[in-house]
Amino acid sequence: MQAKFKRIPGAIVAPKGFQAAGVFCDIKRLGTGKGSHKGAKRDLALLVSDKPCAVAGMFTTNQICAAPVKVCLDRVARGAAQAVVINSGNANACTGKQGLEDAKTMTRLTEQVLRLKAGYALVGSTGRIGVALPMKQVKAGIQAAAKELGATEDHAARAAEAIMTSDSRPKQVAIEFALGGRRVRLGGMCKGAGMIQPGMSGTGRRPAAQPQGLHATMLAFITTDVVIESKLLQSALQEAVANSFNRITVDGDMSTNDTVLVLANGRAGNTSFQSGSRDSRIFGAALQYVCLELAKMIVRDGEGVHRVVTVRVTRAKSLADADTAARSVANSALVKTSWHGGDPNWGRIIDALGYSAATVVENKVDIGYSAPGSRQIVWSLKRGQPTSATYRTLCAAVEPLEFDLHIRLNLGVGSAVMYAADLTEQYVDFNKGDVTDPSTLGG
Amino acid sequence: MQAKFKRIPGAIVAPKGFQAAGVFCDIKRLGTGKGSHKGAKRDLALLVSDKPCAVAGMFTTNQICAAPVKVCLDRVARGAAQAVVINSGNANACTGKQGLEDAKTMTRLTEQVLRLKAGYALVGSTGRIGVALPMKQVKAGIQAAAKELGATEDHAARAAEAIMTSDSRPKQVAIEFALGGRRVRLGGMCKGAGMIQPGMSGTGRRPAAQPQGLHATMLAFITTDVVIESKLLQSALQEAVANSFNRITVDGDMSTNDTVLVLANGRAGNTSFQSGSRDSRIFGAALQYVCLELAKMIVRDGEGVHRVVTVRVTRAKSLADADTAARSVANSALVKTSWHGGDPNWGRIIDALGYSAATVVENKVDIGYSAPGSRQIVWSLKRGQPTSATYRTLCAAVEPLEFDLHIRLNLGVGSAVMYAADLTEQYVDFNKGDVTDPSTLGG
Repeated sequence: MQAKFKRIPGAIVAPKGFQAAGVFCDIKRLGTGKGSHKGAKRDLALLVSDKPCAVAGMFTTNQICAAPVKVCLDRVARGAAQAVVINSGNANACTGKQGLEDAKTMTRLTEQVLRLKAGYALVGSTGRIGVALPMKQVKAGIQAAAKELGATEDHAARAAEAIMTSDSRPKQVAIEFALGGRRVRLGGMCKGAGMIQPGMSGTGRRPAAQPQGLHATMLAFITTDVVIESKLLQSALQEAVANSFNRITVDGDMSTNDTVLVLANGRAGNTSFQSGSRDSRIFGAALQYVCLELAKMIVRDGEGVHRVVTVRVTRAKSLADADTAARSVANSALVKTSWHGGDPNWGRIIDALGYSAATVVENKVDIGYSAPGSRQIVWSLKRGQPTSATYRTLCAAVEPLEFDLHIRLNLGVGSAVMYAADLTEQYVDFNKGDVTDPSTLGG
Repeated sequence: MQAKFKRIPGAIVAPKGFQAAGVFCDIKRLGTGKGSHKGAKRDLALLVSDKPCAVAGMFTTNQICAAPVKVCLDRVARGAAQAVVINSGNANACTGKQGLEDAKTMTRLTEQVLRLKAGYALVGSTGRIGVALPMKQVKAGIQAAAKELGATEDHAARAAEAIMTSDSRPKQVAIEFALGGRRVRLGGMCKGAGMIQPGMSGTGRRPAAQPQGLHATMLAFITTDVVIESKLLQSALQEAVANSFNRITVDGDMSTNDTVLVLANGRAGNTSFQSGSRDSRIFGAALQYVCLELAKMIVRDGEGVHRVVTVRVTRAKSLADADTAARSVANSALVKTSWHGGDPNWGRIIDALGYSAATVVENKVDIGYSAPGSRQIVWSLKRGQPTSATYRTLCAAVEPLEFDLHIRLNLGVGSAVMYAADLTEQYVDFNKGDVTDPSTLGG
């Protein structure tokens, strides 16, 4: 279901009954014993509902998964939660037993300070891997954030800022729509930037039959006042993520921490609905809209990204082939540098198709370009042969900062989309860091 | 069999009976009708034996494969050849029926001008994809090269220069060793630079049970005066390539043109040998030595490469797992940028292991560094936990321009090596090209 939804302000606090806060507590210390973060950006966020919520989550399928992911996997399975505490600057990944203890301590402190039932707080972390959390700072941060909670746009914005790492700007969205006799709302915030090609599942395990994603740390937190059961919420989230966050790539690296959480507190009072109902479809479309808007913000704000390219593979032999082909093109270093250079280089594209595990037949491949979402396609290759489109025309097609790349394999009916980015000198420069200043070294 | 072989000068003309030439004939015209190549670098090479040779070949497994690959696949299967004609500046890939005709015309002209039997010339091409070869220039080039043939070091060097594209220097090697009662010789030249992660097979088809490689155009031409049957030569080459060219990656992109050819003219007069014999093992080790020396030159001279890293995965659950894990690390954008920055970032390494399809268990992973080939390993991670090695010590371990990265998965006995490179701003800058000057746009 494709639908337009009314955008409203307020992001994660737009739905009834939610409050948020974002504070600075100096987490990015890297074990140096000295605060090394310049500029004192916020680094700890709290999100809380005034009543317990149905909950759903999707998590990295990386075999090396961070402590907060392990804690959330357990708690989301129980189907109820009321708050989330999130820190940036430290991923709490590869931190062993201490890391797991620290993640649990974060939830326990949050439950205590917000007077929640035990087990009702969730936790997210993002930042450098393999460094123990500075728990003294984190504890102070949770205390401070609890005092700052509120339901204004500014509160949401501060939380969205606190979860940023290499993001250049906060990423937020909220919508309102009719459901079960009421106006209901969905709000969300997320962070991304690098180590981005999520491949999340509800269990953290890879579904055997599903294309394997790769990744960066992306965290997304979605709130809603809709009345919905956890089980239905989980299946809606699974489908929404499959068509949004699991379809983006910045650098092809899948993180240890990728997490999407949804809290639904039921404060809108809509008539409850069943799986397969019209309302279920409307809610699913709304959730997918929110996820896709957030996912696209992550690609646009990826590390060093200049151009954003939507890779649309159609007529593949199978769905899996379409996905494989789209990911191969979207992650090819040579294709990505050509996008950066504004070079309509179909040779590199067909090369990346050819070495993928998808079935590709040279004299069947069509490659073309359009404006985002447009069906006015300028074809550079038809059935494996260059078209009469001039080099100048093709250059013009790949000049905009966002465009669609259309690849027709003409072997079947499989189709897949990947939201991808170019590869720039800035990406390399950012990620090589500066070893003389460890605070510049990302996760 | 690990062995040292005596290096000698002369490269591809070191073995008895071979002649070579390299000329400039202005191939990189990109269909502009104007010669656009500045500096008049040589762009056409000839290699010929004074008698027919046993022949073996390994070719890209990219489903989109170039016309010269198709021609060679047919001819190598017949088991005899006497010459090779190679051009740079144009890959003759995705050029349809005309491209196939052009590749055949190149071999026919070579056969005519050198007075060889029909079907005894092979052909290789490298350069931009999707542009028709300027056959007038190519024909003139073949005529000119035939007149320049000779057996001195300079002749070999001119041929090695003529096959270069973005390579900064020619890549050559020759060795001499005792075999079957004689001194015998092997010589080789190759080119690489970008679109490099070969995954070649003898049929151009992917062996179902073999790990899939990815790639750049690499071409390698090897000569020998050894007496050997084509079938045995092919099996020796298959094993040598599996342990050399198929284990390198610069950017993870597999080319449409990757080709390794070996010509054996039998002029050394050694006693012939059978598969499984001691001489067969000696020849196999010598061929592998030549292939590995050439393969490493390709990585060291990869586009924008500053640091070369040998990724050694051991104790994986299986051989396939070891290969998968090594490739995941060797092709991770974040790992490669950290190598560029001299950052001993084990977090990115374990992340890339975790999202690979190989089985990885966090608290079993060891990660360390050593000088090339050394067993003096500085461990940064043992059983998933940071060691007491200081950050300064680890930085020093990844500071040299070449080092080994040791990854022990501690789950079995599978092992694999990948010869990899860092990702630099220069790689991006080079490959984004300059659309206002199409002659800068690579394959």
